[in-house]
Amino acid sequence: MDKHTTLKIVKIGGNVIDDSQALASFLTTFSSLKGPKILVHGGGKSATALAHQTGLEVQMIDGRRITDAATLELITMVYAGKINKTIVAQLQALDCNALGFTGADGNTITSQKRPISTVDYGFVGDVKKVETSTLELLLEQGISPVFCAITHDQKGQLLNTNADTIASELAIAFASQFEVQLYYCFEKKGVLKDVNDDASVIKTITKASYKELLSSQVIYAGMLPKLNNCFHALDHKVSKVCIGTPEMLLDSGAIFTTLTIQ
Amino acid sequence: MDKHTTLKIVKIGGNVIDDSQALASFLTTFSSLKGPKILVHGGGKSATALAHQTGLEVQMIDGRRITDAATLELITMVYAGKINKTIVAQLQALDCNALGFTGADGNTITSQKRPISTVDYGFVGDVKKVETSTLELLLEQGISPVFCAITHDQKGQLLNTNADTIASELAIAFASQFEVQLYYCFEKKGVLKDVNDDASVIKTITKASYKELLSSQVIYAGMLPKLNNCFHALDHKVSKVCIGTPEMLLDSGAIFTTLTIQ
Repeated sequence: MDKHTTLKIVKIGGNVIDDSQALASFLTTFSSLKGPKILVHGGGKSATALAHQTGLEVQMIDGRRITDAATLELITMVYAGKINKTIVAQLQALDCNALGFTGADGNTITSQKRPISTVDYGFVGDVKKVETSTLELLLEQGISPVFCAITHDQKGQLLNTNADTIASELAIAFASQFEVQLYYCFEKKGVLKDVNDDASVIKTITKASYKELLSSQVIYAGMLPKLNNCFHALDHKVSKVCIGTPEMLLDSGAIFTTLTIQ
Repeated sequence: MDKHTTLKIVKIGGNVIDDSQALASFLTTFSSLKGPKILVHGGGKSATALAHQTGLEVQMIDGRRITDAATLELITMVYAGKINKTIVAQLQALDCNALGFTGADGNTITSQKRPISTVDYGFVGDVKKVETSTLELLLEQGISPVFCAITHDQKGQLLNTNADTIASELAIAFASQFEVQLYYCFEKKGVLKDVNDDASVIKTITKASYKELLSSQVIYAGMLPKLNNCFHALDHKVSKVCIGTPEMLLDSGAIFTTLTIQ
């Protein structure tokens, strides 16, 4: 495999995980993609549901979950156990040889516990290093790694890490070996000009137009971290970044948002 | 790697999983073992604890858990999530490059849902096929696979499979490529002549002496499936099978039970 081989990294979140039919449909699409591919999944609502069931209090600050020890245990069960293994088993049934990962597995993604500033996010990790050799070996065998949103600090501590970030950091780490395409799939058709109008998809966002959209406050605040991840990837030699429904993965004329440097 | 390379397959269960200090001590021992090695872990008591917490009723028949859909989801969270990832992260901290597996991951262990006879065990799978190629590739890279007690049917269904059986089936599958040593670690020093006397370890059990022990009802009933797994492995070219505390893995003069054909 070389720079001329395309590696697709696909991140799913939101409704694509929470709705089992949407997930099944996505996995059929993913399994049909030719060439090396990696799947990254977020957690969806199951973690919150299990938290309610076990009486664990969910603490959110600015839309971000505070990960205390009990919450970390819970998301490890839900993300790395329930969701990851359900996806892997379903991909196997579709003849897509998949293998589940946290960043601790194969020592693939090392992160650093976020320092306490005004907020203590708890066991949350910021990615420090991605080790691609084992993953590349598996990709060469036709195996698709499936990552959940957990990393480790190499000192025995698992850490909760944003799935969008895991996808972009994997994309950047592979950009020297592959032509990497990064896809963020969710239930919307792309980045919307009007958050209440699903038809208002912005088809292309360049770095320059992104700045304009930011200053005119067109972009919904929840999209900002995702878009920052996207441009961070493009700045580090990832060749293509797209946001939209899983349909964008197929050559079907679907509408979605493509991000480009220029 | 060839027939002259030794592959150690170590299964842990009971107190070695439930007690975090015992687990940490075991992992230090495991990480110090030279050469290719695979770890297989059971579930311990955490699954039952979480079941109580979520109000799930645990159904046991003859000491075996009945795995309905809710129980399968729960053990997938506990075995493949919590326990497996905790072990993998701790091994990484000990400089042992580990990678967690269910049988669905890499399509390594396919099983068949146990047919309903007098008892419906639910989502329980009997091992049908072990695929070693991906595992061998990882072992060659110095990576230690860590298996939990879950397999799949290749049709998208995860299945609960006895960890002792997973260990012996892995041992058998690798016996044509390696000289395989299989170790069952738990809190006892080995197979006891008197279940109330921890000092009554039977040091060697041959196939012939096993039959005598069975007919004289010396062996505690709970040990029977484990011992059957052991002799099944020896019958299929596994070179060595031992039962005892983790100390038996070290060259420290520990007392344990060795099983042999003759």
